[in-house]
Amino acid sequence: MPPSPLTTSSPPLKVADRVASGPSSEVRQIFQTALKRTGIISFANGSPYLGELPFHQLADDAHRIVTEFGSTALQYGASNGIPELRRHIVDLMAIEGVAADPEQVIVTAGSQQALGFAAHATINPGDVVFAESPSYAGAMAVFAAYEAEIVHVPGDRDGLIPAEFECLVRVAWAAGKLPRMLYTVPNFQNPGGMNLSAERRILLGRICQEQGLLLFEDNPYGLLGFDGATMRAIQPDAPDITFYFGSFSKMFAPGLRLGWLLAPEALHQPLTDIAQTAALNPSVFNQLLLTAYLDGPSWRDTLARYRGLYRAKLEALVGALTEHMPAGTTWDLPAGGFYLWVTVPQGIDTHELVHEAIERGVAYVPGTAIYTNGAGRSELRLSFCLPSVEEIRDGAAILGRLFSEALA
Amino acid sequence: MPPSPLTTSSPPLKVADRVASGPSSEVRQIFQTALKRTGIISFANGSPYLGELPFHQLADDAHRIVTEFGSTALQYGASNGIPELRRHIVDLMAIEGVAADPEQVIVTAGSQQALGFAAHATINPGDVVFAESPSYAGAMAVFAAYEAEIVHVPGDRDGLIPAEFECLVRVAWAAGKLPRMLYTVPNFQNPGGMNLSAERRILLGRICQEQGLLLFEDNPYGLLGFDGATMRAIQPDAPDITFYFGSFSKMFAPGLRLGWLLAPEALHQPLTDIAQTAALNPSVFNQLLLTAYLDGPSWRDTLARYRGLYRAKLEALVGALTEHMPAGTTWDLPAGGFYLWVTVPQGIDTHELVHEAIERGVAYVPGTAIYTNGAGRSELRLSFCLPSVEEIRDGAAILGRLFSEALA
Repeated sequence: MPPSPLTTSSPPLKVADRVASGPSSEVRQIFQTALKRTGIISFANGSPYLGELPFHQLADDAHRIVTEFGSTALQYGASNGIPELRRHIVDLMAIEGVAADPEQVIVTAGSQQALGFAAHATINPGDVVFAESPSYAGAMAVFAAYEAEIVHVPGDRDGLIPAEFECLVRVAWAAGKLPRMLYTVPNFQNPGGMNLSAERRILLGRICQEQGLLLFEDNPYGLLGFDGATMRAIQPDAPDITFYFGSFSKMFAPGLRLGWLLAPEALHQPLTDIAQTAALNPSVFNQLLLTAYLDGPSWRDTLARYRGLYRAKLEALVGALTEHMPAGTTWDLPAGGFYLWVTVPQGIDTHELVHEAIERGVAYVPGTAIYTNGAGRSELRLSFCLPSVEEIRDGAAILGRLFSEALA
Repeated sequence: MPPSPLTTSSPPLKVADRVASGPSSEVRQIFQTALKRTGIISFANGSPYLGELPFHQLADDAHRIVTEFGSTALQYGASNGIPELRRHIVDLMAIEGVAADPEQVIVTAGSQQALGFAAHATINPGDVVFAESPSYAGAMAVFAAYEAEIVHVPGDRDGLIPAEFECLVRVAWAAGKLPRMLYTVPNFQNPGGMNLSAERRILLGRICQEQGLLLFEDNPYGLLGFDGATMRAIQPDAPDITFYFGSFSKMFAPGLRLGWLLAPEALHQPLTDIAQTAALNPSVFNQLLLTAYLDGPSWRDTLARYRGLYRAKLEALVGALTEHMPAGTTWDLPAGGFYLWVTVPQGIDTHELVHEAIERGVAYVPGTAIYTNGAGRSELRLSFCLPSVEEIRDGAAILGRLFSEALA
C-alpha cells in the first residue's frame, strides 16, 4: 500500500523541511495583521513612500506604451530583460564602480526573485551561508528554503568584522562543513542600518576568494544615502565570485516588481537558464515603463527629494523616541536607507509585546523575526519611510508608553 | 587550501547538476535565434497573437490606474494577489467545474512561476515525475531543476493511457523509487494537441490517489477550444492531491506575467509562504490592469474572436502542409490550443534540419527539444497562433521543400 502524499512522514514532501521554520513567517504575520487593520501606523513594512512619484507622467508613459507598443509590451520577451533597461542598470551600477556589459545583466521580477535564482544555483543542503548579525529576514528565508545553515557574523558600526568572519569560516571548514557564501547588505543595511567600511569591503572579498566562498552583495539602498554619497561596491574587487543584486523597489517603486542580478561571468549563462526555467521572463510592459522613467530627466530630482524626505522622517522618529522611550533605549543612527534598529532595556520583550502594540495601533518587527536562532527579544526594527511625520510621532509615543509600562 | 567555488568539482555548485541538461536549452536556442533575425517566420514560440486586444481600452485603464491608485498599484502587495483578481480567477475555474474560494487562490507572475513553487514544495531529488509523451518542455525543465526523474507515459488521441500510467507507477515502486507526481496538460496539450477524455481524467485522479501520487493539472489552453466548449477539470474529482495551474498568457497576454495556482487545501499556506519567500508578491499594477480587463464587457467577445482566428490559422497551416509536405507526413488535428504536432517520414531528421530551416527563414521546435530521452527526430511542433495566414502558407511551403529535399 503506497503512502498518501500528504500524510506520510516518510519520505516527506520537501515542503515540510523547507518552509515551516523560515524566519520570515513571523514577519509575514505581523505584516498581514498590520495590512488588514485600517488606521494602523506601520513601522513594520519596508515600503517606500510613493507620494513624490510623478504619477501623471507615469500614467502618460503607460498609456503611450500600450498604445504604441502594445504588441511588444504585452508579449513574451527575452529571459534576461530588454536591452534598454539593462543599459540603464549598467549606468546605475557604474555610480558604485561596477563595470558591466548590458549583456551580463539579468533583469528579474524583483531582487528577491534574483536571490532565489542565485540560491538555487549555488546552495546544496547543509552548505553554510554567512550573514550579518542581524540580517535581512527575506534573504534568510530564501537560504533556509534551500536548506542552508545560516551563521551570523558579529559586526559593529562599520558592518561585519572580517576577522570574526574568517574565524567562523575556518571553524566551519574544520567541522567538515561547506562554507558556501557570504551574504551582505553593505549599504544602509537591513535591519541594522550600518554601512560596511571601504576597507572591510575589500578585505571581505579577499577572504571569500581565499577561502573558496561566493559573495552575495545585496544592494537595494545604495542610492538612498541622505547626503547622496555612494560607496564603491564589493563586486569590482571580487568580480569572479560576486553575485550583485539590485532593486528598483526602494529607489523607485515595488509595484513593477523589477530588480536585477549581475552574476560572475562563468555563471551568467546558467543563471539566465534558471531565470528562463523559473519565470520565462520579467514583464516587458513593466520594463518599458521603468525604462521610460529612467529615460526622463526627473528621476534624479525625485530621488534627491526622497533622500531629504527620508532624512526628515528619521529625524522625527529619533526625536519622538528620545522623548518617549524608556531610559536605556539605544540605536545607531543610519546615514540612509529605510531602517532604525533599536535596542531596548532588559525587561522589555519586543517579541511578546508586538501583539499588544498592534492592538494599540502600531506595528514593528521584533528582533526575533530577524535572527534565526531565537535571539532578538531586546531589539526591534522600525521602518521610517512610509508613515508620515505625524504618524511617526504618534506611533513612537504609543510604543514609548507601551514599553515603559512593560518595564514598570 | 579550500577549493575555488567556481572550479572545484567536489562538492559542486548545484548549478552543474540542475541546469546543464535541461530539455529546454535547445528550445531556448531556437527561440533566441528566431527572435534575433528579422523577417523570420516562427512556428517555434508558443506566443499568442495580440492584434485583437483592445489596446486603447487597456491604455486608458493603465492611465486611470496609475493616476487614481498609483500609491497602491506601485506599492508592495499581498503574496497571494489582490482579492478582485482572485475572484475573477474563481469564476474562470468554475467554467470547468472547479469550486474554489478566492482565499485559496495564489496569483503568481505567470503559471511557469507557479510550477516552480509547487515543484520546490514537493519534489525531492530522485522522485519520479510522470508526464505525457511528449510533454511541455518548460515544465520538464522545472522538474529537472529539482532533480526529478521524468518518465513519459504512452498516450493516444484521448491523452495518456491510464493502464500504462498505473503500470509504470508500479514499476517505479517496485524499483524502490518514489513516484511523486503526474504532470498533465489535459486540454489541447502542449505539444501534442490532444484532449484527455472525461473518463481518463477521473481514472487518472483515482490512480494517483490510490498510488499516493500528487497530480499537477496545467491548464493554459482550456478556454481556447475552437468551438468554445470546455471540459470538466480533474481537480474537482481529486481536490486533495491536485495542484491546478492557470495562465492569462494564452487567453489574454503574456506581457503582464500573471497566472495562478490552486493548491490542495493542506498545502495552501506553505505554498503561499514559498511564493512570499521566492518573489514577495506579483505586480499589483499588472493585477489591477488585468482586473479592469476582466471587469469589462469585452473579454469574452475578444476570446471568441481569437478562437475563430486560431481555427482559421490552423486550417491554413494544415492546408499548406497537405500541399507541400512529403507523402507520409502525419498529424492529429487539435480541437483548440496553439500547436500542431507533426510526424515526418523516416529519412527526415527534424533535429538536424532546424538550423537549415532557420537559414531559409522558418523556425520550428524539433521533437528532440521536447523529449528528455533523445527521441523526437521524426517529430516537430508547429505553433500556429502568432504568424499571419500568409506567413503560415509561406512557412509551410519552405518547410515542405526543405523536408522533400532531405528525403530525396
